[in-house]
Amino acid sequence: MHESCPQAYDRVRPLVWTEAGLEVLDQRLLPQHVKYRLCTTAREVAEAISTMQVRGAPAIGVAAAFGVVLAARQRFRECPDKWRDLIEQDLDCLVQARPTAVNLAWAVARMRRTIPAIEGDPEPVLRAQAQAIQAEDLAANRRMGQLGAEWIGKAKGILTHCNTGSLATAGFGTALGVIRALWQGAVTRKEDLRVYACETRPWLQGARLTLWELAQDGIPATLICDSAAAFLMQQGRVDWVVVGADRIAANGDVANKIGTYQLAVAARHHGVGFMVVAPTSSIDWSLPKGDLIPIEYRSAEELLPPYFQIQGGRIDALNPVFDVTPAALVSVIVTERGAVHQPSSDSMQALRRPPA
Amino acid sequence: MHESCPQAYDRVRPLVWTEAGLEVLDQRLLPQHVKYRLCTTAREVAEAISTMQVRGAPAIGVAAAFGVVLAARQRFRECPDKWRDLIEQDLDCLVQARPTAVNLAWAVARMRRTIPAIEGDPEPVLRAQAQAIQAEDLAANRRMGQLGAEWIGKAKGILTHCNTGSLATAGFGTALGVIRALWQGAVTRKEDLRVYACETRPWLQGARLTLWELAQDGIPATLICDSAAAFLMQQGRVDWVVVGADRIAANGDVANKIGTYQLAVAARHHGVGFMVVAPTSSIDWSLPKGDLIPIEYRSAEELLPPYFQIQGGRIDALNPVFDVTPAALVSVIVTERGAVHQPSSDSMQALRRPPA
Repeated sequence: MHESCPQAYDRVRPLVWTEAGLEVLDQRLLPQHVKYRLCTTAREVAEAISTMQVRGAPAIGVAAAFGVVLAARQRFRECPDKWRDLIEQDLDCLVQARPTAVNLAWAVARMRRTIPAIEGDPEPVLRAQAQAIQAEDLAANRRMGQLGAEWIGKAKGILTHCNTGSLATAGFGTALGVIRALWQGAVTRKEDLRVYACETRPWLQGARLTLWELAQDGIPATLICDSAAAFLMQQGRVDWVVVGADRIAANGDVANKIGTYQLAVAARHHGVGFMVVAPTSSIDWSLPKGDLIPIEYRSAEELLPPYFQIQGGRIDALNPVFDVTPAALVSVIVTERGAVHQPSSDSMQALRRPPA
Repeated sequence: MHESCPQAYDRVRPLVWTEAGLEVLDQRLLPQHVKYRLCTTAREVAEAISTMQVRGAPAIGVAAAFGVVLAARQRFRECPDKWRDLIEQDLDCLVQARPTAVNLAWAVARMRRTIPAIEGDPEPVLRAQAQAIQAEDLAANRRMGQLGAEWIGKAKGILTHCNTGSLATAGFGTALGVIRALWQGAVTRKEDLRVYACETRPWLQGARLTLWELAQDGIPATLICDSAAAFLMQQGRVDWVVVGADRIAANGDVANKIGTYQLAVAARHHGVGFMVVAPTSSIDWSLPKGDLIPIEYRSAEELLPPYFQIQGGRIDALNPVFDVTPAALVSVIVTERGAVHQPSSDSMQALRRPPA
């Protein structure tokens, strides 16, 4: 583990800035291998993003910000007079690494706004800005963790889906940050707290990434099949389902990893709480309702056994990446600006004001 | 495909009796390889059962019945005077191949009851009895298929779980038999009928076995993640969930493959029909309620990535094999003796009378 993360139960960092460049934890190799790859150019950072070495919208944004720092370093060395022109191609390359990630474009735009005022070597100013983006994300996650843990209080059984942890953010995580905060805060006796992680087919982010980072932080966790969640609720083992969000509509509808909606339906049936944890930057105020969010489908090959891919014929697979959970099934949305109970178009407005 | 199954949309048989012995389709190799293994002794049949070459409670019962035929052939050749004594060890060996399968003990007991009246060579009598067990299962499945298809009528989207097809029975299948019958009957135009198969973690019986046998019979099907079922229902793509049962309590509570309960909860939330298809031999009249059914847990290793198995520590997995769906969530139970709408302790009594 990198030594820059001394806090207990929070030792994992997907991105570490060093003098030599940006160290990127290759998440494709987890849990078997913990390998950081040094990126020294914006192009290398873009490749780390496009090849999924780093994933999770907030983490991608932070990586891109440091990519801009590396671009400025290179272009200023090449040509101190023209670096502002030369860097444009690097910024484009970064933004295009994964076009659908909102945080990526947002982070690069924020870095770009810093450029006009720079005099002399751009690296110190841009590095400070990238580090601010990183620090703000981490602080927002810690705040959400605290708020979410206070909301949950003494509950014992927490079920989560996909990976929303340190690996997906600058650190600490969103939904997994709430679980970290619960473990740190110890309102419930630690021996009574039980974290269940859905394996999250087809990519197994739960089985590979969530289990790994909880293991690093010494937080016990139990893996289950995605299809066993309702069974656990029926047995009274789950008090809260805690998940992240890829996008939230203005009325509180939540787009998130496929399977989230099924968990929300099961939670409602059993009277189990359903908490969504995401920064306000994930709220798309331009979308009045979640059914306007386009659902991305990935290749059938991710699901179909190879036999059927060769055979072709009348067998196929449907592989939606996300689903949309209506606000009516959400107990509470937790953001860095506060928590909204029973989200609706009206109650969500409280999150539009700047933080106190 | 074996030529003994000429019927359209019903060409798969897991067990084929020949003069040489019992041909067992090795289901562990599907879908990549279609390989029948010849069993010439009861011990070989027991091994085929215990090593999961043949699976599915009804199919196991049929295999064991033919195992008794092979035992009688061998023991009668060894010692025509003492075969009745010698065969006992073979019957025990068969019963113990998978102790929890109800149909296995039932089939062997039925074969045993035939023995006292036999004179001379026991093989013809026992072979006829085994073939009767096989034929009755097939007939029951065809009857259930017809009843279930009539019940469903013009519905277009059918979702099923695990494998309940020809592979799990003497042929045709239970829940998958209803789907076969729907396809054969063509009340709905074939191009409008859509079959969705849950992949069924952790063993992927849906992705491996159900897809394979539907492909053999030319019935189009679409594979989904177990966690995408509610999303499909939300989109209006599913009219009926059709599943099998491992055991049904006297009040209509249904024990079946893990994930069944989650589907039932989602179906109720969306007003989607939930049909259970199983022979009356699966009803355990001694159990008043389903919560008395013990839930079998399998090894955590089936779920946990190898990394965590080596590491040990505080990461584990919970791997329930079955869950119990309360009768209140079941729209209809279809058996060879008829269908019970909204099953309850009272309405289930109709199935106790012998068939008309």
